Amino acid sequence: MSRKRITILGATGSIGRSALDVAARHPDRFEIVGLAAGANDRVLAEQIAAFRPEVAALESAEAAARLQDRCGSTQVLSGPEGLAEVAARPADLVIAGIVGSAGLLPTFAALEAGNPVALANKEALVMAGPLLMEAAGRKGLPLVPIDSEHSAIFQCLAGHRREDVDHIVLTASGGPFRRTPRAALERVTPVQAARHPNWDMGAKITVDSATLMNKGLEVIEARWLFGLPPEQVRVVVHPESIVHSMVAFRDGSVIAQMGLPDMRAPIAYAMTYPERIPVDVAPPDFVKLGALTFEAPDTERFPCLALAYRALAAGGTQPAVLNAANEVAVAAFLKGAIGFTDIPRVVAATLDAHPPEPLRSLDQVRAADARARRDAAALLPAGAFTAEAGGAA
Amino acid sequence: MSRKRITILGATGSIGRSALDVAARHPDRFEIVGLAAGANDRVLAEQIAAFRPEVAALESAEAAARLQDRCGSTQVLSGPEGLAEVAARPADLVIAGIVGSAGLLPTFAALEAGNPVALANKEALVMAGPLLMEAAGRKGLPLVPIDSEHSAIFQCLAGHRREDVDHIVLTASGGPFRRTPRAALERVTPVQAARHPNWDMGAKITVDSATLMNKGLEVIEARWLFGLPPEQVRVVVHPESIVHSMVAFRDGSVIAQMGLPDMRAPIAYAMTYPERIPVDVAPPDFVKLGALTFEAPDTERFPCLALAYRALAAGGTQPAVLNAANEVAVAAFLKGAIGFTDIPRVVAATLDAHPPEPLRSLDQVRAADARARRDAAALLPAGAFTAEAGGAA
Repeated sequence: MSRKRITILGATGSIGRSALDVAARHPDRFEIVGLAAGANDRVLAEQIAAFRPEVAALESAEAAARLQDRCGSTQVLSGPEGLAEVAARPADLVIAGIVGSAGLLPTFAALEAGNPVALANKEALVMAGPLLMEAAGRKGLPLVPIDSEHSAIFQCLAGHRREDVDHIVLTASGGPFRRTPRAALERVTPVQAARHPNWDMGAKITVDSATLMNKGLEVIEARWLFGLPPEQVRVVVHPESIVHSMVAFRDGSVIAQMGLPDMRAPIAYAMTYPERIPVDVAPPDFVKLGALTFEAPDTERFPCLALAYRALAAGGTQPAVLNAANEVAVAAFLKGAIGFTDIPRVVAATLDAHPPEPLRSLDQVRAADARARRDAAALLPAGAFTAEAGGAA
Repeated sequence: MSRKRITILGATGSIGRSALDVAARHPDRFEIVGLAAGANDRVLAEQIAAFRPEVAALESAEAAARLQDRCGSTQVLSGPEGLAEVAARPADLVIAGIVGSAGLLPTFAALEAGNPVALANKEALVMAGPLLMEAAGRKGLPLVPIDSEHSAIFQCLAGHRREDVDHIVLTASGGPFRRTPRAALERVTPVQAARHPNWDMGAKITVDSATLMNKGLEVIEARWLFGLPPEQVRVVVHPESIVHSMVAFRDGSVIAQMGLPDMRAPIAYAMTYPERIPVDVAPPDFVKLGALTFEAPDTERFPCLALAYRALAAGGTQPAVLNAANEVAVAAFLKGAIGFTDIPRVVAATLDAHPPEPLRSLDQVRAADARARRDAAALLPAGAFTAEAGGAA
């Protein structure tokens, strides 16, 4: 068996490290072709030493040059061009693990170069779902999900026919404020919001879980990834996060994928499907768990989920606007500049101010993203918005 | 699309009627070739009038002759030969829905004639699993499960590799005495035992659910159907009966199949897989259900499950002996001749008296079955055993 050639974009982040953990457990199966990181040159240097990829990239040209001096056999590139070149290097799979809108361009670069993509980056599908699916379809390439919910749906669909799907059910943990009364939500702090009950993730996505915007973004992802109209994409709150998601078929049958919360399992599945490999994750012990519970999401207390459906229904550039406004609002919340319940207010007002335009090109999506960020920032108290809130790469 | 030619053995029973309900909803997909029943000539006559099969069979020659006079275009046969002839008539699928050991021979007849079989009959696999799998394998024919648990496993395996299975988990409702203390079990009545919490089934199988012997028989079925050693077949009690069963893979991932308790769904799946058709069964409403719970089976209070594992470990004719002794004991319990907790005692004593012989032939299995019935009956109070307790056809 020849080894699978893998490239990882966002190699030093949570997804990238988990993917390399999987690869390190199975050196007979995987060969690392390319690794791209942002600023973490120290960890990237260790990864290069361990996996000896053909090519690597860092954001800064200086840091890349320093790294090149230490890593003779690996070509070290830099900047957006370097990142795109790593993405385009021939591979059997490019794992797109860069978070935020910065992951958009290299994902397209990978597809355009003819590389199959495993997608952990939410924003690419949220901002430019139809464009991305069109690019993958035109090249005849799979877009394999890595997000645990979408991997679950992907696994539940295996062996069954898309035509027989009645609807899919994305599960949501409900976040740390599932039981918090509406009035108290006004006063929750960034520290409280950053405590996810089940998954260990970054601050931004953990706040998104607390507002349910994360689930809203996943609804948009699922809509494009599986080609399902919004009314066939449902959400149920499942606090134990054991059922990762489910597919209901037209015979009343439901297939669910379950597991302990460990990203190595969906990452490994994307790397080997339809095969599965051991990744040191045990199956859930149902007797010990005792009960799996389900409740309806409360869109009164958590309006972000309803806003995502609204943006999806409006279509065109509205999901990109939703995502941009949310990134700005969450950054402002994390800095203490606005309250938790201001997040959906900023997002709603930004959506109101941006009538949807039909999606035509990546440039247009990036322009809509930039405009939405500016307009969302203008809604914040003076000085609350800085460049840290991001912007399309 | 040409219609699928279906034969139903046990047409007037619960499985047979559900299968005809499915066929009647989709006349463009299914054509009924053969129908076999036991004594219920009235219902069979209605079914012949509605579905106009080529051939039909009843047990009694007289009843068959009377029916023949009324059903000109359908050939009406009788006796074991007639049943075997219906089973052997060329078909795209033979649904083996005859309960008890009487279903054994016609299932073999169907396979020997080259007909794919959908199996609702537990006893065939319990008594003669290796012989049945060998016959199906030799003919290159599928043996598709209809039992809701085994259909669930079959559905969970679709699209995934058998080599990647770590273990399977059969769910058990736990029966009506899940919470009954050990001492009180001595005194439960047949009427109490016949109340299944979730499924509407016959008296014998409902008692088997109450003793957990039903789950034990299903463990044996699963062992042969899916070619898994006993230690890879586990049981968990799940009182809501929504999760019909699950497969745990070696990456820690679990795929589960769920649904409301309605046999039409697994029957229809066996008739159309990998396609699914609407059968007027809605998917479960997880929010309304609220919780799915799980607990370990209690083999102290319900020793029948442990006896089934014991018979499976001993191998050869022991599962047939287990099944025969259980049929005799359950019949005696239903007549009030022995207590509920005597059922496992009779089964254990019968197993003790029958050292396992390696499985060689159907005749040998039937002889072991007959001997076990005789010996089990000898353990009962005088007069408790009559011909009603059955015997291999």
